[in-house]
Amino acid sequence: MITLTSDFGFKDSYVAQMKGTILTINPKATIVDITHDVEKFNVRMGAFILASAASFFPKGTVHLVVVDPGVGTERRAIVIQTKKALFVGPDNGVLMLAAEKMGIEHTYQLANPKFRPQKISNTFHGRDIFAPAAAYLDNGVEPSEVGPEIEEAVEPKFVIVKNKDNIIKGEILHIDGFGNLITNITMQAASIKEICVNLQNQTFTLPFCKTYGQMQAKQSIALVGSHGFLEIAINQGNAAHKFQVKVGDTVEVGFRT
Amino acid sequence: MITLTSDFGFKDSYVAQMKGTILTINPKATIVDITHDVEKFNVRMGAFILASAASFFPKGTVHLVVVDPGVGTERRAIVIQTKKALFVGPDNGVLMLAAEKMGIEHTYQLANPKFRPQKISNTFHGRDIFAPAAAYLDNGVEPSEVGPEIEEAVEPKFVIVKNKDNIIKGEILHIDGFGNLITNITMQAASIKEICVNLQNQTFTLPFCKTYGQMQAKQSIALVGSHGFLEIAINQGNAAHKFQVKVGDTVEVGFRT
Amino acid sequence: MITLTSDFGFKDSYVAQMKGTILTINPKATIVDITHDVEKFNVRMGAFILASAASFFPKGTVHLVVVDPGVGTERRAIVIQTKKALFVGPDNGVLMLAAEKMGIEHTYQLANPKFRPQKISNTFHGRDIFAPAAAYLDNGVEPSEVGPEIEEAVEPKFVIVKNKDNIIKGEILHIDGFGNLITNITMQAASIKEICVNLQNQTFTLPFCKTYGQMQAKQSIALVGSHGFLEIAINQGNAAHKFQVKVGDTVEVGFRT
Repeated sequence: MITLTSDFGFKDSYVAQMKGTILTINPKATIVDITHDVEKFNVRMGAFILASAASFFPKGTVHLVVVDPGVGTERRAIVIQTKKALFVGPDNGVLMLAAEKMGIEHTYQLANPKFRPQKISNTFHGRDIFAPAAAYLDNGVEPSEVGPEIEEAVEPKFVIVKNKDNIIKGEILHIDGFGNLITNITMQAASIKEICVNLQNQTFTLPFCKTYGQMQAKQSIALVGSHGFLEIAINQGNAAHKFQVKVGDTVEVGFRT
Repeated sequence: MITLTSDFGFKDSYVAQMKGTILTINPKATIVDITHDVEKFNVRMGAFILASAASFFPKGTVHLVVVDPGVGTERRAIVIQTKKALFVGPDNGVLMLAAEKMGIEHTYQLANPKFRPQKISNTFHGRDIFAPAAAYLDNGVEPSEVGPEIEEAVEPKFVIVKNKDNIIKGEILHIDGFGNLITNITMQAASIKEICVNLQNQTFTLPFCKTYGQMQAKQSIALVGSHGFLEIAINQGNAAHKFQVKVGDTVEVGFRT
Repeated sequence: MITLTSDFGFKDSYVAQMKGTILTINPKATIVDITHDVEKFNVRMGAFILASAASFFPKGTVHLVVVDPGVGTERRAIVIQTKKALFVGPDNGVLMLAAEKMGIEHTYQLANPKFRPQKISNTFHGRDIFAPAAAYLDNGVEPSEVGPEIEEAVEPKFVIVKNKDNIIKGEILHIDGFGNLITNITMQAASIKEICVNLQNQTFTLPFCKTYGQMQAKQSIALVGSHGFLEIAINQGNAAHKFQVKVGDTVEVGFRT
């Protein structure tokens, strides 16, 4: 099984060119799209999306990711081997969040010309380098055959969550299609009743809920979402529009039990 | 075969998390997306979209639908068994339009813990409850095993079409991507030549056609569309933009033979 | 294997209705979406997108395309047989660019009632005529069985590239999701260093690069893209926004070695 994640969108045929390439090498491959609507060139967002989905796929899945502003430059192409899955993509951090959650065993540089076509474009390695590699790996090729093992891959940058005087400081990691604000703060819901949030220099007190529909429609709430992170949401509404925030903004949180 | 319909969009990984869950339980499942662009929380639109597509799938298909503003609240999770297909989703009406077209045989509450993971989120039953159920049902589990039979499921609300003095009163059920206005009025095209339509207190006389391309480009027309309902359209144009209407608006129609 | 290309979008269930129809006839079909976001009724764009992707699919693939402003009128439905693949769609030029690249062997009119349902809508031949044909062809039905051979199919119209006094005159064939301007000019990159481009009566000198990331971010460049055509792009930016051009605009190019 092969999953695909990219910033290519669906208007063009770039995703289809990758799928055709995979299916030419490996006609029985099951291909599942994670998303192709990662914001263009946004490696951090690609890393988050992949990490949120990869663990739900079966053992042995090959996750192919192409968010690749450095295509054609010196940046390396890599394959990461973990206990549960393989990851294929550029060495720019986009694979690391998901791979580290599964426990990285080995990282290889994708260099063996045996697993790529003779003619390679300078601008579309997703099709010409990563897709063939994913197809061969899904076919049973050993990761160690793709090229030399490497020691260190590039890490993506995220704000580190800090806890000081019971105020937790993190950031908005992702805004989903419902407008829910997903932070990078993990927490035990236990006995919390209310949460005090500082966003864009404005402070709000929000009820801490188990699910969206627990309060009335259009009510702002805080909860632990399906990603396992603290989320700020509006029941049947759009929190990103209301609070006028964007991905990367700082968020400070206090609790009332 | 399993179809998926939701209001999740494709930007996030929610759909992929459901697919990974299904494929982990049932690696050979064929999964087909109906749409994930149902308007957020719009149960009626989900019901219409599902009903427009379900009958084209093979016997035995499992249709999984997640348009679920009540996730985590008291609303039940259900499986509907019909002669041709199974339907899995929340008990909020979203499954009923399609299921009733096929003849409902039994409705069960999805309650057996055997068919769900040990840890369930409060906010994403699509992944944690509905997707596993669909995967097991597609694998051959009997619908009666998922939980107790129930008598009544929630019905979606649609305006009932009324015919008085040869004026038919219905509503705009859906506006498709071409801007065609799909009403809930079924009719025999027979010998009709023109149609008189009242939309937003304005009255128009439109030629009654067999297909879009029968009149010149940009000409407004009425026809029986592929859904089997009366449609108001503009050949190679967008009727929703021109007539400034929205889903749910009333439409009154008279005929000239 | 069957690929699908259309202007239906994914909000409606039109694509799903086609897939259900195919899978009812041919439950083991592998179906791959090329795109459903061709601009509504834009036959030329459909032709370009298909031609950019088709050659990457395995031998024997059936390419089904529905960009069909003339649905229900006198325009013919056709099947084109080439050395590598079959093409199914309306006879309006949308198939030709891709089919000609592969070498057309025979063209047949899709007319045999054996390969379509008894009841056919006037407005959705994608579902009622083209999808069943693709399913049967993928199942092994011979193209010659679908109907009579025909001599000439409709050609799509593209500006012919002219080379005069070392100025090449072509057009913008496509603007991709990154905002890259893809022209219809093929060229040998060899020893070119700079390129002089006239767009909308403004002239620019751009460095001629191998890949996007070769220059600084936000720098305008020219390169031979993955389609094999001259592209004008901005590294990590959107050239279509900057140069305010649209598909079909003329582009004139000179070279400096």
